Amino acid sequence: MTAPCGTRPRARDIGIRIGVLPTGPLNAIPDVPGVRVGHVSLIEGEGALVQGKGPVRTGVTAIVPHGGNLFTGKVCAAVHVINAFGKSVGLPQVVELGNIEAPIMLTGTLNVWTVADALVDYMSERNPGVYSFNPVVGECNDGALNDTLGRHVKRHHVFEALESATRTDTGEGNVGAGVGMTGFGWKGGIGTASRVLSEDWGDCTVGAMVLTNTGQASDLRINGVPIGRELRPDTHPYVEGSIMIVIGTDAPLSSRQLGRVARRAVFGLARAGGIASHGSGDFVIAFSTGTLISVSGNQSTGPDAFVPEPLLSSLFRATIEATEEAIVNSLFRAETLAGRDGTTRVGIPVEAVAAIMQKYQ
Amino acid sequence: MTAPCGTRPRARDIGIRIGVLPTGPLNAIPDVPGVRVGHVSLIEGEGALVQGKGPVRTGVTAIVPHGGNLFTGKVCAAVHVINAFGKSVGLPQVVELGNIEAPIMLTGTLNVWTVADALVDYMSERNPGVYSFNPVVGECNDGALNDTLGRHVKRHHVFEALESATRTDTGEGNVGAGVGMTGFGWKGGIGTASRVLSEDWGDCTVGAMVLTNTGQASDLRINGVPIGRELRPDTHPYVEGSIMIVIGTDAPLSSRQLGRVARRAVFGLARAGGIASHGSGDFVIAFSTGTLISVSGNQSTGPDAFVPEPLLSSLFRATIEATEEAIVNSLFRAETLAGRDGTTRVGIPVEAVAAIMQKYQ
Amino acid sequence: MTAPCGTRPRARDIGIRIGVLPTGPLNAIPDVPGVRVGHVSLIEGEGALVQGKGPVRTGVTAIVPHGGNLFTGKVCAAVHVINAFGKSVGLPQVVELGNIEAPIMLTGTLNVWTVADALVDYMSERNPGVYSFNPVVGECNDGALNDTLGRHVKRHHVFEALESATRTDTGEGNVGAGVGMTGFGWKGGIGTASRVLSEDWGDCTVGAMVLTNTGQASDLRINGVPIGRELRPDTHPYVEGSIMIVIGTDAPLSSRQLGRVARRAVFGLARAGGIASHGSGDFVIAFSTGTLISVSGNQSTGPDAFVPEPLLSSLFRATIEATEEAIVNSLFRAETLAGRDGTTRVGIPVEAVAAIMQKYQ
Amino acid sequence: MTAPCGTRPRARDIGIRIGVLPTGPLNAIPDVPGVRVGHVSLIEGEGALVQGKGPVRTGVTAIVPHGGNLFTGKVCAAVHVINAFGKSVGLPQVVELGNIEAPIMLTGTLNVWTVADALVDYMSERNPGVYSFNPVVGECNDGALNDTLGRHVKRHHVFEALESATRTDTGEGNVGAGVGMTGFGWKGGIGTASRVLSEDWGDCTVGAMVLTNTGQASDLRINGVPIGRELRPDTHPYVEGSIMIVIGTDAPLSSRQLGRVARRAVFGLARAGGIASHGSGDFVIAFSTGTLISVSGNQSTGPDAFVPEPLLSSLFRATIEATEEAIVNSLFRAETLAGRDGTTRVGIPVEAVAAIMQKYQ
Repeated sequence: MTAPCGTRPRARDIGIRIGVLPTGPLNAIPDVPGVRVGHVSLIEGEGALVQGKGPVRTGVTAIVPHGGNLFTGKVCAAVHVINAFGKSVGLPQVVELGNIEAPIMLTGTLNVWTVADALVDYMSERNPGVYSFNPVVGECNDGALNDTLGRHVKRHHVFEALESATRTDTGEGNVGAGVGMTGFGWKGGIGTASRVLSEDWGDCTVGAMVLTNTGQASDLRINGVPIGRELRPDTHPYVEGSIMIVIGTDAPLSSRQLGRVARRAVFGLARAGGIASHGSGDFVIAFSTGTLISVSGNQSTGPDAFVPEPLLSSLFRATIEATEEAIVNSLFRAETLAGRDGTTRVGIPVEAVAAIMQKYQ
Repeated sequence: MTAPCGTRPRARDIGIRIGVLPTGPLNAIPDVPGVRVGHVSLIEGEGALVQGKGPVRTGVTAIVPHGGNLFTGKVCAAVHVINAFGKSVGLPQVVELGNIEAPIMLTGTLNVWTVADALVDYMSERNPGVYSFNPVVGECNDGALNDTLGRHVKRHHVFEALESATRTDTGEGNVGAGVGMTGFGWKGGIGTASRVLSEDWGDCTVGAMVLTNTGQASDLRINGVPIGRELRPDTHPYVEGSIMIVIGTDAPLSSRQLGRVARRAVFGLARAGGIASHGSGDFVIAFSTGTLISVSGNQSTGPDAFVPEPLLSSLFRATIEATEEAIVNSLFRAETLAGRDGTTRVGIPVEAVAAIMQKYQ
Repeated sequence: MTAPCGTRPRARDIGIRIGVLPTGPLNAIPDVPGVRVGHVSLIEGEGALVQGKGPVRTGVTAIVPHGGNLFTGKVCAAVHVINAFGKSVGLPQVVELGNIEAPIMLTGTLNVWTVADALVDYMSERNPGVYSFNPVVGECNDGALNDTLGRHVKRHHVFEALESATRTDTGEGNVGAGVGMTGFGWKGGIGTASRVLSEDWGDCTVGAMVLTNTGQASDLRINGVPIGRELRPDTHPYVEGSIMIVIGTDAPLSSRQLGRVARRAVFGLARAGGIASHGSGDFVIAFSTGTLISVSGNQSTGPDAFVPEPLLSSLFRATIEATEEAIVNSLFRAETLAGRDGTTRVGIPVEAVAAIMQKYQ
Repeated sequence: MTAPCGTRPRARDIGIRIGVLPTGPLNAIPDVPGVRVGHVSLIEGEGALVQGKGPVRTGVTAIVPHGGNLFTGKVCAAVHVINAFGKSVGLPQVVELGNIEAPIMLTGTLNVWTVADALVDYMSERNPGVYSFNPVVGECNDGALNDTLGRHVKRHHVFEALESATRTDTGEGNVGAGVGMTGFGWKGGIGTASRVLSEDWGDCTVGAMVLTNTGQASDLRINGVPIGRELRPDTHPYVEGSIMIVIGTDAPLSSRQLGRVARRAVFGLARAGGIASHGSGDFVIAFSTGTLISVSGNQSTGPDAFVPEPLLSSLFRATIEATEEAIVNSLFRAETLAGRDGTTRVGIPVEAVAAIMQKYQ
């Protein structure tokens, strides 16, 4: 039921070094201390679309900011809307209160409300007597490959993704929410990367996880090289798509500062060739585990102070680099996948990319 | 299964005249040409809360902007966030695209995702081949009376509310989403009012519908009179609550202009004594039927031009007056209702209110 | 050169008690520890408008958050835009960085850039080697009485207002920026009020200062009583106007929290009868002296933590009450003043108001 | 008094083709029908900084959307804030009303209020009897080369820039507001570019003008090539800087749509290597001449309808490409300039850049 993300290399495995900052040990969002990731990938059936039956090419991904109870130890958070042609759930409360009080879920567009509802169950079981939770769920539309109206992600898949989340997960491509996605004309999906900073105020990690379902084939750039001008899928599928970008960090940032960080993720998207076309629902969610907020609204743990404002520039750079690399990884790791009605998304040919990178260097 | 809103009078029935503008024939949001309203009210069981069983004190309300297909004839729309401690669904896309493409639903907080999901079914049945819809669903928390975690509003209730919507509905109080709500310590719920304008550029109607679940008992003001200082429920329940305010108009307004209108609804809330306390999730959704937007984004019908900007002040006044009166009506029409665990919300005693109004002139 | 604000009473002097919270000793914004206020009032000439000559009915008001160097001890701050038909200077940076780094100035609309420029001089003198400051200047249009295009507020007036600022200033009405203003058809101008809270996390003060130049005569409400329906100036001047609202507090609030506070000031405006008509440029600026931010962006002083979120509701109430009372005071204290071209704004007749208040109570 | 922009080539002159869309005839913002541009460049004195004396390295640039009276024929407009560490004037009203009612001015940071004040004079002379204007003025800080506290741009310079504006101006680099700027470590300043679209709904032009004062030397990318990794100024000056981006178009866009367009300019900045560091005050102003708004708020001219929403993607692409190319042009055209205290900014060596571009292609 769960597809392995296969043996395809990541960008760095073939010598592509995006940016100047060092990565964390996994070069993935779980490099942020405490962050766990889990995926449930649903791949079933083939052939013609039969609504409610399949083919099923979808899934759900959980990003769990820390190992405790998120409701009683909320994380500071912010949202940046790049292009709000999307159905993400729970964003307004994040803006108002500056925190997220449950794991962050990603899924296919039309699953988003089921996933939110299930996440409330999950939180409710862990917080008896509480009658209100703000689930935050992002989405991209996997309808090109998937029976999206069938809404095949169910409550138990959400629990499974949450319960299977680990601090070592580096699944990418066709995993979790990424199963049915398309990126720059190729097979897209989940990608991740991280950066480590050693600053005056201490060390910290910035991790990015993206769900890539956006981009026109001809626009793809990898580390500045116009791959999309040189190499395109035969089918040249144009997908309006969407991208979800989740940024996590352990740097002690206020929600206002996290908003500034979130607004830099778009620079990574732009570097990869994204243009946020009209129909692309592009959102950034940023959180910090550096300060936890109790139910009462008090800081329950945390540093003496937030990161001094001028030092944010380093975090901006880390965010941009990690986002750009996560997008590239989301393509590199995604294997060719056939979906409904004979539609196939081809995994980007890594060797051909490597050759072009060579030519331009 | 559906509770009548009873024989309690509206504010105007006992001589309370809020503001200076004339009302429409129904003094309700269906006075806006084309707008329909439908409610499904769920009242079942008594006694101690058994999660998943009841008691059930909840419901769902549909506000249908026009009689056609909302997806192919979207209405210009805007959102104003008063205090985003709330779970409303679908707001970001409204801000980005300036339109709403489905009926607007109101319900109890934890039903919001089920209702959104069902609304997608409803739209999907009417728009085969479309794989993306943006359901807009507002909510207040009916957990004081209702088994809210039981999420008793189901898919078929959503369809029923939509299919039963009429141009003559003037249900208020304990109807639809209003069943389990509390307002200024009294029984709250649905309320509505309207205003009619005759302007240089033509006649138009502004309608307000509120879902009142907010307010501290001592703060209630009716037409400026400090009712809450004089008259309070014995139980003095303080509820953080929430309020949803929906403003509809047939005035041809752009989404930017509707944003300006939406930002005036808060003045009506303030006049009624609201303070938008920390935990009150207060949102305004405004739409105009004066210009319909096709799927392709073209204006498919509509006037030669939007309302000239300086003439918006009249629409602001209409919005403020209709919102204030809708809030008062939401209290006046709501009958005493007992809910879970022996909790009762008492309908505001209209005669006592009338006496105080008299005393204050 | 400076007009006394005269012997007219404040609202509380004639028994009008707005809200339930206690006031500070001065019932004015300097009740917030450290806050100083200074005014320069310019009243010169009479008769027909001669652009550049007069009559002059304008001024400038300084609100100085603390006695130190604001640039090296910035105050956390936020802005709420009620209706941005206005020329206020410096707001975007306040939103981005969450602080204010200079005294806050109020003046007549067309003086706003001169005042900003002069404020940079003032800050520059105190911070040699610094080449960038963000002056925050609010404004209302005093063109009804004043030769506004003459821009009679000069650099030295700004310095004079700043240098004369005291912790005891309770000037209201025709002082400083208030000289040429109109409120609800009557003479308007500066008004102020304060509230004191004793909370679990400590005591704090909320102060409001308004510059009232908004409101239709018939809409005026004082403590809920429809004064404007009963009592209007003979000339019934309708002024689109504007209102600036400045909220100061010593409660330790983050800029996000101050944004929530600022969004409540509109409730006070609404209670006084404001509707934020199309042409009224209405802004709220809120600051906290509870945490100072150094140039480097570090918190340089301050508490262990910000106010716990749920306790903000008390601050919301204090803000609403202080704003409402400040508006009423801005009318009560403003004496009749004649301006250009025979235009006169009449001070609201306090005795007549008192009689109406009596009748309604 | 006015510096020629010299004989340095533009990016396209040496074969750098950014993006895929065709340029307008001038490849500059005046390609947008009706748009005029004028500059006043102030270069005086040398040596040590003497505040108020010099050296003077500053100026002012006027972008005039059309040849008529902007106050009686306002242009639809929007603003996007990339990073609001900046002093731009007039933005809030643009957001509220969706229009700009005066020419758009660019200048050095501390001149911004003088320029705004002078622009009011300019508009006032042309609109007697009007007492309120909303000047929109953007800025970057030229303090590295210029006696910025001297505020050497005076009222008459503003008039001169406005009166000298032409439909053929293609000045770049050290002209107008660009005189004292630094870009990616090199001499920066004014740059411009344009794109032409032939769409179903008609032809249109998108023009960009930037004032580049941002960027770290090592980050510079030209058309994806990491120039900044290969080639840096000896002095490696790091400037927090800022960038102002003005987008003009004749496509009939609503202010909401212009907001979507403005949000794409950041993609062009990102492609050029910008990261919007903490201290960089980065704003986008977008306007459309496709629909003029009269004083009364009516559309006074214009098309039957706005651009259908899905077709905006082409305008997004045009905006991104024109912004990216304008930034590159702002460096290419800027000649080496010495300023205060022996500080010099070196013009980017075009031949060396060309060689690197060759190597990477």
